[in-house]
Amino acid sequence: MPKGQPAVVPDDGLTTRQRRGRPLLLVHTGPGKGKSTAAFGLALRAWNQGWPIGVFQFVKSAKWRVGEENALRVLGASGEGGTVAWHKMGEGWSWIQRPAVGDASGQETNEARVREGWEQVKRDLAAQTYRLYVLDEFTYPLHWGWIDTEEVISVLRDRPGTQHVVITGRNAPGPLCDVADLVTEMTKVRHPMDTGQKGQKGIEW
Amino acid sequence: MPKGQPAVVPDDGLTTRQRRGRPLLLVHTGPGKGKSTAAFGLALRAWNQGWPIGVFQFVKSAKWRVGEENALRVLGASGEGGTVAWHKMGEGWSWIQRPAVGDASGQETNEARVREGWEQVKRDLAAQTYRLYVLDEFTYPLHWGWIDTEEVISVLRDRPGTQHVVITGRNAPGPLCDVADLVTEMTKVRHPMDTGQKGQKGIEW
Repeated sequence: MPKGQPAVVPDDGLTTRQRRGRPLLLVHTGPGKGKSTAAFGLALRAWNQGWPIGVFQFVKSAKWRVGEENALRVLGASGEGGTVAWHKMGEGWSWIQRPAVGDASGQETNEARVREGWEQVKRDLAAQTYRLYVLDEFTYPLHWGWIDTEEVISVLRDRPGTQHVVITGRNAPGPLCDVADLVTEMTKVRHPMDTGQKGQKGIEW
Repeated sequence: MPKGQPAVVPDDGLTTRQRRGRPLLLVHTGPGKGKSTAAFGLALRAWNQGWPIGVFQFVKSAKWRVGEENALRVLGASGEGGTVAWHKMGEGWSWIQRPAVGDASGQETNEARVREGWEQVKRDLAAQTYRLYVLDEFTYPLHWGWIDTEEVISVLRDRPGTQHVVITGRNAPGPLCDVADLVTEMTKVRHPMDTGQKGQKGIEW
């Protein structure tokens, strides 16, 4: 809603212009569909503003999000909007040249990879590499305790500039939601798989 | 979830392959954000499959969705995925050459325009013009009674081929949800405007 009226005008000494430029933390959580999809839809707006976008895909399977990835790569390379950097844990992060840590045990590997991803996010936030960060499925390592939620909150609170961050996934930790500017919960009302519908190309991936 | 297992295998005589090709009706409703955004994110997957996509934007303001529209137009013209046709009620539908009906009264005009949009959707469904239809904010004219929900249900039930339809907006009528394959409700847990945050470019539009 471009012209939406805030319910409250805060007593924070900021001008409207300053409030329009405030960095936002958005959380898409809940058991329903559309959490990541809405984050990538948001990336279309950011692209249209000419913003550099960084996607960090904290999921194992490289098959996931292939449609969104291809679309955002084409957009990023079109020369018409912002740039897009798409980082995938599933294939090993692109910036890591050595083999992943802890290959003997699947879980160790994944935990180490997740941590590598978060370390890169921290470096990029400090360097203000992107204007929009999509931390896709990032709630899971927080929920599992692989990454400390308090550290994430602290890093996000202190991030410089106007860097917007969208975090997606089920079971977003309460303390993270408490500091977010927008929390949307996607609730499943009915899902095709409940009645035996199979996942479909173009819809599920 | 590409490899998700259905909770139930229906006794409908269809093979898995047939179930994978079934036309779906998806509804994104609820008071939270991300309803339309998730629909446009879904369009990225459809685009990546090479599907022709038709967007029907049942909203007045042409300013809305400008990011998504520009992005999908660039994608549609890239020659790499599917095509994109973007139809806007706000500027008068593109296929209408004559002036809109009922210009003397704002509401009449909008109601007439909404009906023109739905008539075109019906023509396109009959002709199987698109593989994915995004009927953005289409729940409102249903909710207001401008378009008969039972007629929409009937047209969608009888649509030929494998045409997927996504309908977005608050207050989706119950009977529509009852026949949908997927209904996701977006719930507002916290919104920046609650604390006086202003809408921001790249985030809200």
